[in-house]
Formats: sequence, C-alpha cells, structure tokens
Amino acid sequence: MRALDSYGAYDGWPAERILAPFVVTREQRREIPVIGDPDDVTLSRIKAYYNAISAMIEKECGLMAVPMSNINHEGFGRVLITVGKLVVMDRTLRDVHRFGFDSLSKMQDEADKLLAVALEIVGKHSEVAGL
Amino acid sequence: MRALDSYGAYDGWPAERILAPFVVTREQRREIPVIGDPDDVTLSRIKAYYNAISAMIEKECGLMAVPMSNINHEGFGRVLITVGKLVVMDRTLRDVHRFGFDSLSKMQDEADKLLAVALEIVGKHSEVAGL
Repeated sequence: MRALDSYGAYDGWPAERILAPFVVTREQRREIPVIGDPDDVTLSRIKAYYNAISAMIEKECGLMAVPMSNINHEGFGRVLITVGKLVVMDRTLRDVHRFGFDSLSKMQDEADKLLAVALEIVGKHSEVAGL
Repeated sequence: MRALDSYGAYDGWPAERILAPFVVTREQRREIPVIGDPDDVTLSRIKAYYNAISAMIEKECGLMAVPMSNINHEGFGRVLITVGKLVVMDRTLRDVHRFGFDSLSKMQDEADKLLAVALEIVGKHSEVAGL
C-alpha cells in the first residue's frame, strides 16, 4: 500500500490504519449491495494485495514474480502471477466491490496458502520458472 | 473479428473489408501522432489479433490457450497467452494507437512466428502446459 502511495498521503499513518480497509466483516459485507461496480480505491487495494503476494513469492524463491490483473468495470476478472514462464497463481475474481477479509489474520492465512501453493509449483517446475 | 461482433455489424462484409484496418502502411503510420491514446475500436482490434493467435495455438497443440491483456489508457501494456500453467507468449506493448501491419502477409508472418515459438515452448514443457 505504501508502494502505491505516490503522493505520500499515508506518510505518518500507522500500518493498522492503512490495512484497516482490507477487513470487511460479515456484518459489513451484508450491508454492501450484491451487485455493484468496484471503485478505483477498491481496485488499487486488490492490486496491492496481489503485489504483496508477488513480493512474498519473489522473496522466498529468489526469482522475479510478476502480477497481472484484468478486472472489468463490473468487478469480474482474473489475476495471475508469473515467475519466468510459469503461472504460479491464477484466480478468477468476482464481485470485487466486496473485496475484503473477515480479519487481518484471515488475510494472512489466505496469503500464506497462496504463497505455499506458488512455491510448490516453482519447486516442481523450476526449469520453467527460471526461463 | 467476427467472434467479437456481438451485434452482427460485419454480417455480409467480406473478410478483406473486416481485415483492412489491420493494415497500417508506413505512410499512414507517419500521419498518426507519436503520442496518443488508443480508442476502444483499436483496443478491440488488438484483442482480436491475440485471440486469433490463441485460437491457432489451441488448434495446433490441442490444449486450451487463454489470452490476457492489460493495456492502460496511454496505450502501454502487456499481453500474454497461457496454456495450462505455461506462459507461451509474453509481449510488452507500447504505442498501441498505431497498431497495424505493413501488409496482411506481414501480419501472417508475425502470427506464424509467434505460433512457432509458442508451440516450441509447449513441446519442451508439455507437462506444465498440461496442468
């Protein structure tokens, strides 16, 4: 999030305040309409999330990980992360206007899962990941 | 191009007329400003081109090929085609408002080259392509 903050609007904010919008509790989610278009802030939050996953993959395996997302104005899309010529994460997104996690620890759990799967794929197909 | 033509605007058009905008000669290109934003028609033409490459890859190797593109409003971006967990084509695009080929045969040549490279990658890493 700080990396995306070109104008330094978050300078001086503690991490908790920057991360707060990533938590959308069940009650909050219930209040968001089922159908809705995601705004730019939500889209950049989703990007930040998958950028972070990429950075974690890169840190663990030592190879460059590149995220790429394609989300249409209705909030449907696809996000993938590549390492070399290997797709290490590939997800279909929907209803991204409701993007968020029950808690920060749930967010961490999901990120850890994605990371573990990605690293397993890199380990299995290291030749393709090194291309 | 016909596949993207949801409203049948091209019904009854011969192939030459539909493909004509893919040809941008040197003279025509010189008349297009160097800096410019691509319009929706140009963007959908670029999509059609890479959709076609994907379809050719799919036809040749018998595995599903999925194109994904990400082009910003300034006409810079990236397009890739995946087969299974393998990236078989990965290109950086720039100045896409000037997208086009010197002639249809040049377009065919370039498509053939991309196809050959993609099929070579699939052949070398068929295990990852089959994931």
